[in-house]
Amino acid sequence: MTLKELGTPAALVDLDTLERNCVRMNERARRLGVTLRPHVKTHKCVEIARIQTRGHSGALTVSTMAEARAFAAAGFNDLTYAVPVPFHAIPEAADLLARGTRLNLLLDSEGALRELEAAGSARGLRFPVFLKVDCGYHRAGVDPEREESVGLARALAASLHLEFRGILTHSGQAYRCAGAEEALAVAEHERAVMAAFAEKLRSAGVRVPEVSAGSTPACCAARDWSGVTEIRPGNYAFFDAFQAAVGSCALEDALAFTVLATVIGHYPERGALLLDAGALALSKDPGATHVDARCGLGVLCDEPGRPIPGTRLTSLSQEHGRVAVSDPSLFARMPLGSKVRIIPNHSCLAAACFGSYVVLKDGRADGKWDTVGRR
Amino acid sequence: MTLKELGTPAALVDLDTLERNCVRMNERARRLGVTLRPHVKTHKCVEIARIQTRGHSGALTVSTMAEARAFAAAGFNDLTYAVPVPFHAIPEAADLLARGTRLNLLLDSEGALRELEAAGSARGLRFPVFLKVDCGYHRAGVDPEREESVGLARALAASLHLEFRGILTHSGQAYRCAGAEEALAVAEHERAVMAAFAEKLRSAGVRVPEVSAGSTPACCAARDWSGVTEIRPGNYAFFDAFQAAVGSCALEDALAFTVLATVIGHYPERGALLLDAGALALSKDPGATHVDARCGLGVLCDEPGRPIPGTRLTSLSQEHGRVAVSDPSLFARMPLGSKVRIIPNHSCLAAACFGSYVVLKDGRADGKWDTVGRR
Repeated sequence: MTLKELGTPAALVDLDTLERNCVRMNERARRLGVTLRPHVKTHKCVEIARIQTRGHSGALTVSTMAEARAFAAAGFNDLTYAVPVPFHAIPEAADLLARGTRLNLLLDSEGALRELEAAGSARGLRFPVFLKVDCGYHRAGVDPEREESVGLARALAASLHLEFRGILTHSGQAYRCAGAEEALAVAEHERAVMAAFAEKLRSAGVRVPEVSAGSTPACCAARDWSGVTEIRPGNYAFFDAFQAAVGSCALEDALAFTVLATVIGHYPERGALLLDAGALALSKDPGATHVDARCGLGVLCDEPGRPIPGTRLTSLSQEHGRVAVSDPSLFARMPLGSKVRIIPNHSCLAAACFGSYVVLKDGRADGKWDTVGRR
Repeated sequence: MTLKELGTPAALVDLDTLERNCVRMNERARRLGVTLRPHVKTHKCVEIARIQTRGHSGALTVSTMAEARAFAAAGFNDLTYAVPVPFHAIPEAADLLARGTRLNLLLDSEGALRELEAAGSARGLRFPVFLKVDCGYHRAGVDPEREESVGLARALAASLHLEFRGILTHSGQAYRCAGAEEALAVAEHERAVMAAFAEKLRSAGVRVPEVSAGSTPACCAARDWSGVTEIRPGNYAFFDAFQAAVGSCALEDALAFTVLATVIGHYPERGALLLDAGALALSKDPGATHVDARCGLGVLCDEPGRPIPGTRLTSLSQEHGRVAVSDPSLFARMPLGSKVRIIPNHSCLAAACFGSYVVLKDGRADGKWDTVGRR
């Protein structure tokens, strides 16, 4: 089937680009001596997780219990749930663990430690846990500079109902970078913070099996992961306009995931055209406005995936996307009813708008992959 | 079941508030002598559409063909697909029409007229169509001041393969208002533009059966719909923080739809706490920043639905919501593992994150309603 024949909006996955992105990150991890534990929240798709884990242990990272259930059901039995564990999720986590899925949980507080210990004691289980560390993003995690953080790690390691897996961080601050040089500095800071904290814990007599780090920008920029044992990027499978803007990838790498849309309105008198892809196909993620305040809500491309200069996706309502057109000849290039492709600002959020992907091979639709674990 | 027992994030629909919102809009329409054709894109839920259409023709508005299919299957057989029709949707629209669903389509161009005529001719069908008019939002629609717009209406009315249903607009510019007074002015402008254009068409010999208008802010503010025959608000069933900010409703009316979340992190050293509701539970809609630049990404409430002063939802990542807390005593009020409710900035986009609603009756979970027509 050609793109012309598809209904829109549709989520397109270009197989060759996806595979290239996955191979490159695998090679990067191998070169720098770390294990890759890909985050599947970006795509929520079993087939893509299989591509990410070729020649690989199969360990994955998830962001919800629904993802954990779905990927466990698909045979992935070593998962890290990379959000401080919500207490209501503990019984279900215990069930997965009891059925043979190693589901690593995160915590960063005494309160969560007590809650997990009580559940482990009641169920006769030892929950594998990571201590979440704040390396500068300030979203979650303990401060590695505080003495209490060492005390919490010691309590985890000493617990009869927990298996202390190590320390884990996420350098989300790398998304504030303006290019690969800055992302390299973030990655190096993240590495140094985690390596130093692991050493501090070891000096205090705490065994630290794993030191887990990484965001996609940091993982694309890093040249050294000494002291780190695993990285958990996710977005790299698809990339997006944001990642291209902050230097994680070339824009063409972000063609791994695009949204196919139809031109449904021409308004040359106000230099605008209208697409049938809105906030429920692209999300309202504003993109890398710190790099380019006028980046718009995605990058408009033609069917083969070439960006169309002179266009800007200016606003999205639920099912409409408005495009400002600076060159009147573009209306003839994009007639009513024709198809365009959009590289979204944030592929994780755009992909979550869809229950399935159309798989592209050599520019033709060549299959369909469902997503799993949607709310 | 109490809210404490629910998994999170969860989409809550408070039945009493929903019904009150629906009754009020029905009464408003009746008082002003217009038909109400509710937009179901906000909730995508058959049970809610039934509440909206009590004592009513059952006519609805939809925003996608998937919604059209789903609501037609549920017995709603008079639908308006309120987006300029994408050409690839025409065969399916023809199928629905042939099976007895009146599916009104929108167009605003000669190109779409030709495309629909060709399809109607090939299938032996007459598509019911509205001419989409721009009343100042500048998203879609013909300019009612231009002579070509009269010509297009005349061509629609004369077509053998189209049934001209009338003219239709959407005053989306009402979302830029800072209060009910301004929304009233938008509604009055919308009414005047549409009434005048209908008269102009009638003077030109074109029969105009319907004059369709309305956004939720305009419909909440309007005092007169003379010359208009139907209104199509949708958001009013749920409302949200944005609608409260622009004066469409009281904040308590927006408790019709809330997102239940769990407190998963306490960071008093930086005045922050963390929720397990992120962009895939609330959307990244920035809210009514033109009214309050610091409105945040939703309004944090306690379990009964009372806003919690001193909190601000500062940022959302995929599955994390960060809350700035200005009063240290609030940590004790929201302990780890406790539940909060969030009034989202934009209920249409937040609701679309979920496949079902938990129905609340007197503060307790009392059933589950599925959504339909998701991608």
